[in-house]
Amino acid sequence: MKLGRLNHVGVATPSIDRSVALYRDKMGATTVHDPFDLPAQGVRVCFVDAPNMQVELIEPLGEGSPILKFLERNPEGGQHHLCFEVDDIDEARAFYDSKGVRILGPTRIGAHGTPIFFLHPKDMGGVLTEIMESPRQAH
Amino acid sequence: MKLGRLNHVGVATPSIDRSVALYRDKMGATTVHDPFDLPAQGVRVCFVDAPNMQVELIEPLGEGSPILKFLERNPEGGQHHLCFEVDDIDEARAFYDSKGVRILGPTRIGAHGTPIFFLHPKDMGGVLTEIMESPRQAH
Repeated sequence: MKLGRLNHVGVATPSIDRSVALYRDKMGATTVHDPFDLPAQGVRVCFVDAPNMQVELIEPLGEGSPILKFLERNPEGGQHHLCFEVDDIDEARAFYDSKGVRILGPTRIGAHGTPIFFLHPKDMGGVLTEIMESPRQAH
Repeated sequence: MKLGRLNHVGVATPSIDRSVALYRDKMGATTVHDPFDLPAQGVRVCFVDAPNMQVELIEPLGEGSPILKFLERNPEGGQHHLCFEVDDIDEARAFYDSKGVRILGPTRIGAHGTPIFFLHPKDMGGVLTEIMESPRQAH
């Protein structure tokens, strides 16, 4: 395993609309993608492009959304996770299994349409870490 | 103002040594820079390179370290701030002043030797945001 590129920083928000306004008005974001629902993960998602990575704004979707608790503790939102790319998701999963790092749930399709999984923050220095297979066109 | 590149993600840790071991062993980091003290900010700093940005590991330095409170709430560490680059720090400061965004303290020299300042997380969607003038060689 070799540390891959940071695909995105996940930022939880109670309102994508409000966060998009903030990124446009106070950060100078010019490319904001259309928001979409990701029911498998219980979130609504909106990507904001920076020159070298993306900010993934995530808003709760449904009553069982995994970010509801985060927003209870951080009502204004905040940094939620870091997503790093790997070449091969199955290889990465086997690697983390072998290291005894807790993997949160099955490998599933993430916001970019490629397989992802999450690692337990308690095994990753307090950082909820998403591991994502690089989109093919980036190879 | 135009959204610049993400220079680094600041990750607080009770132990840079332990975090460096984690980034090497569990993330596959190969380039880890020498740690150094940044007394002006009350932190000891260590940069870990990813292909498109850096992770800035920060450990408390001194009794007045601004990350001690963060570590009380998050004993294992965690995501602390996001640092975005701008071309001109004075222009950026005037911009945030004009927007009514609270700036935390004076402009000072940051871990990369260029001027930086921090924005209040309550004005930035819960994200402690560092604004950093791009290193000259990157222009």
